[in-house]
Amino acid sequence: MDFSPSPRAADLTERVRTFLQTEIEPVEADYHRELAALRAQGGDAVWQPLPLIAELQGKARAQGLWNLFLPREHAGEYAARYGTDGGEGLTNTDYAPIAELTGRSALAPHVFNCNAPDTGNMEVLLKYGTDEQRAQWLEPLLQAEIRSAFTMTEPDVASSDATNMAATAVVEGDEVVINGRKWWSTGVGHPDCKIFVFMGLTDPDADRHSRHTMVLVPRDTLGVKVERMLSVMGMHDEPHGHGIVSFSDVRVPLANVLLGPGRAFEIAQGRLGPGRVHHCMRLVGLAEMALELAVRRATTRTAFGRPLVKLGGNAERIADARIAIDQARLLVLHAAWKLDTEGSRGALSAVSQIKVAVPNMAQQVVDMAMQMHGGAGFDEELPLAAAWVSARSLRMADGPDEVHRGVIAKLETKKYA
Amino acid sequence: MDFSPSPRAADLTERVRTFLQTEIEPVEADYHRELAALRAQGGDAVWQPLPLIAELQGKARAQGLWNLFLPREHAGEYAARYGTDGGEGLTNTDYAPIAELTGRSALAPHVFNCNAPDTGNMEVLLKYGTDEQRAQWLEPLLQAEIRSAFTMTEPDVASSDATNMAATAVVEGDEVVINGRKWWSTGVGHPDCKIFVFMGLTDPDADRHSRHTMVLVPRDTLGVKVERMLSVMGMHDEPHGHGIVSFSDVRVPLANVLLGPGRAFEIAQGRLGPGRVHHCMRLVGLAEMALELAVRRATTRTAFGRPLVKLGGNAERIADARIAIDQARLLVLHAAWKLDTEGSRGALSAVSQIKVAVPNMAQQVVDMAMQMHGGAGFDEELPLAAAWVSARSLRMADGPDEVHRGVIAKLETKKYA
Amino acid sequence: MDFSPSPRAADLTERVRTFLQTEIEPVEADYHRELAALRAQGGDAVWQPLPLIAELQGKARAQGLWNLFLPREHAGEYAARYGTDGGEGLTNTDYAPIAELTGRSALAPHVFNCNAPDTGNMEVLLKYGTDEQRAQWLEPLLQAEIRSAFTMTEPDVASSDATNMAATAVVEGDEVVINGRKWWSTGVGHPDCKIFVFMGLTDPDADRHSRHTMVLVPRDTLGVKVERMLSVMGMHDEPHGHGIVSFSDVRVPLANVLLGPGRAFEIAQGRLGPGRVHHCMRLVGLAEMALELAVRRATTRTAFGRPLVKLGGNAERIADARIAIDQARLLVLHAAWKLDTEGSRGALSAVSQIKVAVPNMAQQVVDMAMQMHGGAGFDEELPLAAAWVSARSLRMADGPDEVHRGVIAKLETKKYA
Amino acid sequence: MDFSPSPRAADLTERVRTFLQTEIEPVEADYHRELAALRAQGGDAVWQPLPLIAELQGKARAQGLWNLFLPREHAGEYAARYGTDGGEGLTNTDYAPIAELTGRSALAPHVFNCNAPDTGNMEVLLKYGTDEQRAQWLEPLLQAEIRSAFTMTEPDVASSDATNMAATAVVEGDEVVINGRKWWSTGVGHPDCKIFVFMGLTDPDADRHSRHTMVLVPRDTLGVKVERMLSVMGMHDEPHGHGIVSFSDVRVPLANVLLGPGRAFEIAQGRLGPGRVHHCMRLVGLAEMALELAVRRATTRTAFGRPLVKLGGNAERIADARIAIDQARLLVLHAAWKLDTEGSRGALSAVSQIKVAVPNMAQQVVDMAMQMHGGAGFDEELPLAAAWVSARSLRMADGPDEVHRGVIAKLETKKYA
Repeated sequence: MDFSPSPRAADLTERVRTFLQTEIEPVEADYHRELAALRAQGGDAVWQPLPLIAELQGKARAQGLWNLFLPREHAGEYAARYGTDGGEGLTNTDYAPIAELTGRSALAPHVFNCNAPDTGNMEVLLKYGTDEQRAQWLEPLLQAEIRSAFTMTEPDVASSDATNMAATAVVEGDEVVINGRKWWSTGVGHPDCKIFVFMGLTDPDADRHSRHTMVLVPRDTLGVKVERMLSVMGMHDEPHGHGIVSFSDVRVPLANVLLGPGRAFEIAQGRLGPGRVHHCMRLVGLAEMALELAVRRATTRTAFGRPLVKLGGNAERIADARIAIDQARLLVLHAAWKLDTEGSRGALSAVSQIKVAVPNMAQQVVDMAMQMHGGAGFDEELPLAAAWVSARSLRMADGPDEVHRGVIAKLETKKYA
Repeated sequence: MDFSPSPRAADLTERVRTFLQTEIEPVEADYHRELAALRAQGGDAVWQPLPLIAELQGKARAQGLWNLFLPREHAGEYAARYGTDGGEGLTNTDYAPIAELTGRSALAPHVFNCNAPDTGNMEVLLKYGTDEQRAQWLEPLLQAEIRSAFTMTEPDVASSDATNMAATAVVEGDEVVINGRKWWSTGVGHPDCKIFVFMGLTDPDADRHSRHTMVLVPRDTLGVKVERMLSVMGMHDEPHGHGIVSFSDVRVPLANVLLGPGRAFEIAQGRLGPGRVHHCMRLVGLAEMALELAVRRATTRTAFGRPLVKLGGNAERIADARIAIDQARLLVLHAAWKLDTEGSRGALSAVSQIKVAVPNMAQQVVDMAMQMHGGAGFDEELPLAAAWVSARSLRMADGPDEVHRGVIAKLETKKYA
Repeated sequence: MDFSPSPRAADLTERVRTFLQTEIEPVEADYHRELAALRAQGGDAVWQPLPLIAELQGKARAQGLWNLFLPREHAGEYAARYGTDGGEGLTNTDYAPIAELTGRSALAPHVFNCNAPDTGNMEVLLKYGTDEQRAQWLEPLLQAEIRSAFTMTEPDVASSDATNMAATAVVEGDEVVINGRKWWSTGVGHPDCKIFVFMGLTDPDADRHSRHTMVLVPRDTLGVKVERMLSVMGMHDEPHGHGIVSFSDVRVPLANVLLGPGRAFEIAQGRLGPGRVHHCMRLVGLAEMALELAVRRATTRTAFGRPLVKLGGNAERIADARIAIDQARLLVLHAAWKLDTEGSRGALSAVSQIKVAVPNMAQQVVDMAMQMHGGAGFDEELPLAAAWVSARSLRMADGPDEVHRGVIAKLETKKYA
Repeated sequence: MDFSPSPRAADLTERVRTFLQTEIEPVEADYHRELAALRAQGGDAVWQPLPLIAELQGKARAQGLWNLFLPREHAGEYAARYGTDGGEGLTNTDYAPIAELTGRSALAPHVFNCNAPDTGNMEVLLKYGTDEQRAQWLEPLLQAEIRSAFTMTEPDVASSDATNMAATAVVEGDEVVINGRKWWSTGVGHPDCKIFVFMGLTDPDADRHSRHTMVLVPRDTLGVKVERMLSVMGMHDEPHGHGIVSFSDVRVPLANVLLGPGRAFEIAQGRLGPGRVHHCMRLVGLAEMALELAVRRATTRTAFGRPLVKLGGNAERIADARIAIDQARLLVLHAAWKLDTEGSRGALSAVSQIKVAVPNMAQQVVDMAMQMHGGAGFDEELPLAAAWVSARSLRMADGPDEVHRGVIAKLETKKYA
């Protein structure tokens, strides 16, 4: 069980750290203030990315800190061409500490072109895309020229059970006809979001895991409509956002199908392991950031004549947060290492474990940090409220806690069956 | 230990319930949708109360369901003149079930003129105001012609320790000169908010609890400025809102002082007991509403071939929520009964107990209800996200959990000293 | 919702409190030391009750503090003849504060002849017994001349589902023939334990809740054998204890059947409500005792130069314990009041709620108190280890937490069905 | 961060696993049954080790599975002479998986001569002992010819603060005179326990961490008396046990001092890191054993027509236990690796973290496993009750949770000071 990153990955990690400290942290508060001002002002301006993002992306790319998420296994020539400094992809274990660092900042994943859902969609294209699909969509994504969305979850069915998906993707000759409504489609608020990975029901009579198909649907296809943007606890996560998208008799060429009709679950399996490691590792970074803020506040703010850290259970809360974060990080590294050494199948329990443990940990650590800040903890001038929302929503996104606990329990009981 | 409401209070409770079901519930979703639309549109429109509120207030007042919060002890002639049907105030025990009902709806407290911080400010005026102060401010408040704010908490000091307040209220001849910055001043967003109860430092050399003064500051006094509105997890609670208010050489007549210079703590003590009972009882109602939604969802939504309530720990979660709510309600009734029978001093531990237990309970129950709803739980179309924010912020407002635990522990250890 | 005891019950409560303080507390540590010595010495001596018990029982009875558990509804003439001072039984609400007091001491329930399972068995005889059954078994039980056991749970089936009981009680002519093994039969260690209430399967083909029968089985019947005594976390709860009992072709007259063949569930329903209130109210008293010890320790023991209560989260732990106990007490009073006003059926959820909430609360409060005592907390010289075992085992006895949560959830979901 | 054991350690681990499965597991239940019978019979027989232990020790030693705990850093020639197969000690990372395995069985640590407190005492002798001290005490300990105790904690002071120790070790000429009372001295029940490591106050005026001395006190020295054996939740952990020991004018030669007068804290620091890793890793094994029992029970026991694992939250409980155990194991491996790579000082927070996290985790997992077993979970025929006691007492032994949280918080706040 070796969680050490390769020397090259360790070097990249340090360079990402420096970039964060010198390029992102100094401008982050201003960025959020500017965004808040746009938000207060209302209308659509808030959905137009502020120029800072592109500027930082340019710097990151120039330093070779670009597309670092590209998985060694599938990166192929793309790593050399569009990114990862040094010419090949990183293992999950290598990438994990980088993901942790980018989790400290809401901007960072975008700056390094390592943000969900684009990373997951790029992985799918890498792994399952045809040359044409890759040329048309993967290459501009790797260059951040366009953005993408993953449209799977539906408002009308319990989407925690992915076999429930009822939107249809019917093959008619050399076309696929798409109908239905999707929501929580992250990224659809962004003006550059040009391509949707759509999951729909193709053959209701097939075996439960062979009914659905994944299809590439360009956003500007006739019949595609973003109905409205969703809020998470009052936040809209502009300029990416999460939306409700309806598809009415949308027609795309059969060539837009990924892997083949009825093979959506095959793709979903492969897609989710690394993505969950990324999400969870970013949450570890988020929790570290929150703990740092809590400690700084606790040592500098005075009440009843003493710094907060000397009052009541506050020091113990800090200790508990430290323990929780360290346990969570190790568990994510363990899942990354399992993915690297045993693949998706062997890492099934490990990945579900982090998906339960880490967002819950982050939610609690951030909650503690908010409480340590008094009223300041809730307002948008500090990143804690947004951090809480991020942690909380990841107890639902990519499968609710309860479903992952079910997966773990099933594998656990099998051991003695 | 008799928690039964008087027959008159029981009757009022039933009438409030009917009003909620017939007048408020049917229009509530539309109200929030309209508000959301204004919010998305941006600008100041969202800070203008929608006409529905005044309309419902008229109906409630016509039915004698008005100012029900008026405390029997201090209501005096005002109950008869402005409100509580039957001509006298209610005890805390009587009012508690009414507060619970109004907690189910974000609108209801305003509709019945029973919303914080106006209720607390009216109580202060009732109990400590001069005839002139009452004529000028209490009477229009009782008629909902104006709204008020309580400006105490400050961004620059740990306000959990109220002796920290550093904004000044200096007596100069027959004037009081006010300087400083306050925040989390609830209600200042409302265009009718005309009067602030301000707490400031008058005599830094006096005994720790005799340094501060409460002063009535009309909002339109020269030097008063609402700097900006604050968000709680991205929400602004329009049209009331919470703001940062600065006071620069603000001068008001000495006659605006409440009770007398240096007597702010005396007022604060008396003000907070009933207010905390109201807050907590409303949270019990909020949690009941959330549990009802969770149960309805769990019994009607299907995943993996079964209703959610049959999956994993969901039924146990519902049971735990039921237990938690029932325990919380009883604890609040107990605190109300203590206030009625032993007064603020005798109820000190009981009131701090509910202030710790109930918001935490509500936060957890709402969190569970959100999880049961999947993605729908986070969006503003359901009241759960706002409910969570309400519960969470009450772990801070009116004193953070940690301070109240300190009060309880102190009283507990005194028993054996 | 009136939880006030009647004046007579309040007076009895005060007299029980005085008796505890003057008669029991001063001798309790010695009693346990003597018992520990017998235990260390080994052999059967420890199963012989120490004379102190009978002595204290005599005093209690002389003061009319005897059989106070007798339920108003069913006490009939027995209350006047054998006990409750004043000539009639108490309501559940009346008795609850008395049960709380007796819960502070492991001895007290026995001293007042109010200990499980004798109380439950006496209630069954009162409610369902024939005149002959009452004359033979109830009268000596009311006088503490004999003790009884309830033999229901079986080692070989999940007894949380009472319909699983597989030991048989077959009617053959005017006899009942009993076979099978029972365990966790509390009280069988006591030399005066003369009568078992046995629950067995009579008609496997009947409706699920009409298959079982309750039968009175004198302990000295041929074929009855106490196989061995069980330990709970290393404790045997001498001299009462919990045993495994086997029944091999045990024959008793048909007249020993309670209520009638196949009617065991009817009896079980009626038996359990008040018994659970008693158990839970005693646990509230136990937790109060533990909290008192914790506070005394925290205020008098010094580490790192300060009393423990000033260190870390200790004061907050004390506050949380106070809140938890007060909530639990109110919930039990609520269940008692429900039983009094709505009967077993109406109190179903309320009784299951306390059965989940109170033992868990007590387990946590005692755990905290142990921790506050350092190593001293674990040893038998302090009552904390035994208190923990008592609380923990009540998360299983009378139905595990999980089954009660199921009951509550079922009733909750029915509300909206 | 490489947690992989060396190939040699991996081989030893497999051999220990085989030994456990073939030599220990088949006889363990009988061993405990025999012990229980002795216990019930009373008297001193239970303090005489059953012959099985020595027999198994012989086998283990013959296979080179002996003294595996010997730390690479300090093992020196002793590893080759008395033990670790292959001739040198293991690193903490190497030994951790072995410790985990031995934690599954209460017997195993003794069988492999790897049990506390002998291991800690042997480490102290290795590291700080003179040649004479090592010849006299270390060599027979390494051969399990004698046993030892560590007498530090005192009943009359809060021993969580080790500077409180009040028993005295006064240097008089070439002797040390010892007075005072110690408790929770583990191992003093064993007839072979011949040597105590005693910690006493030598110079009350010295610097806070230079006042105390560690002295070797042969048990048969005049004035040493084991007053009584202590119980933990009713268990005595025979034949080792925990006792209260009094020292009355006990005189030993100055040559028995370890390292030098006033240097006890230096020794304590070095002693505790590896010991805590051992304890915690054994608890991980204990929790794994408990989870295995829980899963086996949950899948084979039926209630309400379904296996327990299909009922309510049981599957989710199993998943949560799996997550908790895996996180705990990783955290212990992390602490072991820190000790190996950065030494005691660098591992300070990591070691305190496991000391908080792991016993709490084990207590909860075992509690869940007990609950899954119904009544069977509490009785001594299953190892769960003893496992719970072991986990619970380690929240106190070697420093209570609260003190370790304090250490962690201090180091955390230093980062930003």
